[in-house]
Amino acid sequence: MANHTHLTAPTLFVEANAVRYAYRRFGSQSGVPLVFLQHFRGGLDNWDPVVTDGLAQGRTVILFNNAGVASSSGETPQTIDEMSDDVAAFIKVLGLRQVDVLGFSIGGFVAQSVVLRHPRLVRRLVLVGTGPRNGEPSTNPRIAEVATHPVPTLEDFLFLFFSPSAASQAAGKAFWERRHQRKDADPPSSPQTMNAQLAALMEWRQPRGERYADLKAIQQPTLVVNGNDDIMVPTINSFTLSQHIPNAQLIIYPDSGHGAHFQYPQLFVAHTELFLDN
Amino acid sequence: MANHTHLTAPTLFVEANAVRYAYRRFGSQSGVPLVFLQHFRGGLDNWDPVVTDGLAQGRTVILFNNAGVASSSGETPQTIDEMSDDVAAFIKVLGLRQVDVLGFSIGGFVAQSVVLRHPRLVRRLVLVGTGPRNGEPSTNPRIAEVATHPVPTLEDFLFLFFSPSAASQAAGKAFWERRHQRKDADPPSSPQTMNAQLAALMEWRQPRGERYADLKAIQQPTLVVNGNDDIMVPTINSFTLSQHIPNAQLIIYPDSGHGAHFQYPQLFVAHTELFLDN
Repeated sequence: MANHTHLTAPTLFVEANAVRYAYRRFGSQSGVPLVFLQHFRGGLDNWDPVVTDGLAQGRTVILFNNAGVASSSGETPQTIDEMSDDVAAFIKVLGLRQVDVLGFSIGGFVAQSVVLRHPRLVRRLVLVGTGPRNGEPSTNPRIAEVATHPVPTLEDFLFLFFSPSAASQAAGKAFWERRHQRKDADPPSSPQTMNAQLAALMEWRQPRGERYADLKAIQQPTLVVNGNDDIMVPTINSFTLSQHIPNAQLIIYPDSGHGAHFQYPQLFVAHTELFLDN
Repeated sequence: MANHTHLTAPTLFVEANAVRYAYRRFGSQSGVPLVFLQHFRGGLDNWDPVVTDGLAQGRTVILFNNAGVASSSGETPQTIDEMSDDVAAFIKVLGLRQVDVLGFSIGGFVAQSVVLRHPRLVRRLVLVGTGPRNGEPSTNPRIAEVATHPVPTLEDFLFLFFSPSAASQAAGKAFWERRHQRKDADPPSSPQTMNAQLAALMEWRQPRGERYADLKAIQQPTLVVNGNDDIMVPTINSFTLSQHIPNAQLIIYPDSGHGAHFQYPQLFVAHTELFLDN
């Protein structure tokens, strides 16, 4: 394990609650493990090797497909809270007492639910390209159409995750190259997963009590990261997270969108290390 | 010079436009010099040695009293733009071709004016606890009263620069200790400086053309930093700066106010180094 990287770590499986969860585990064996929770429809290969291998220098990195997603078995549930219970079951069956959690987009919604429903399992939280329950919705109608294309293309990712500038689009293409280096690719997620995640996204938009009040209950030190013009989960939601979570640091990158951490992967690693290790 | 630190660097003087500017210069001789522009009424000793000595590891640090401020001679002008012309005159008379500028509070207003009026003089910009022209004003009436006390006290700084939490107040006291270590202290600024700076703050609140449009003309890579609850220059102004300056990174620290960079000095140094050196 110690010598494995993003590209070589085997896909492992572990069973809990009648689900066979797919995951990969690599990096240093010291420190608190960091569990990655992926975006809408994404699987093990949708992360950036520069980010995962960079963070794996100082801790064990665990990439994870939630129930039903890509190579995991089972059905994807229709609420964020059920998804977070699956995350908790996965962490426990691995025998881990406490982890750090990095959630991206819908994975960031799940990460918030994990710390609220299973607070003892999480030491620190990294929320990337995400927002609170009942946050400010995206206003671009093209997003729902593009994000549900049967087979997501490079052009789709360049539109959804990067800014229209030449620099951001070039960074998006470089990311696309990096993330397709692995030979034994994780299979794409099923239509069942997409539809269940869409239902969960709709549910997450509904109010539950006073707006943003649940964020006050997050006790974990939290790092909130986004691009300055995220068209999927508008950037103001990251500001809102940092204003309502009691111990939150906010970092916003220039000329970038939902995938800012894939546009500035080394800087994102450096910022996340400073946050996790101090 | 190379062996001097915040505590030992002598106060030097240089003359331009009939003003004798006081400054201190220390740190590494490599890299682009970093010029510090101070807050309302503040002089050479109002910086945090952990911040200045930390950043001086990788560059020359230049602390500077603008015209009329503390040990500088002359009258303090009544507009931010005139203050920025004084900064430009100072940089030029030192024979520096290009510098990085770190402006705090009113120093951040001046820094914005420097890059707009003298764009070639500045390579990168760090804006701390500050906001745009005609930004969102402070709403707490106690601030104007406390900030104009004849002799600012520890209690005044704890109220104005730190959050009410025990952790932030303790960090404020530690900062106060650090910044009073120097024996040959810079004299306090005069009532003339205070009144002229107040006039400049009032002028800065006035609109000039379309709101925030001038920020689009800032070409320099910019780092914007603040605490999550700045009561002097409300934190939303930092978000606004990062949304309108074309190439701006935003970092907001938790449980902190206007003096967040004095509350988390090592982290602020690490973040600023990552920004300036990459």
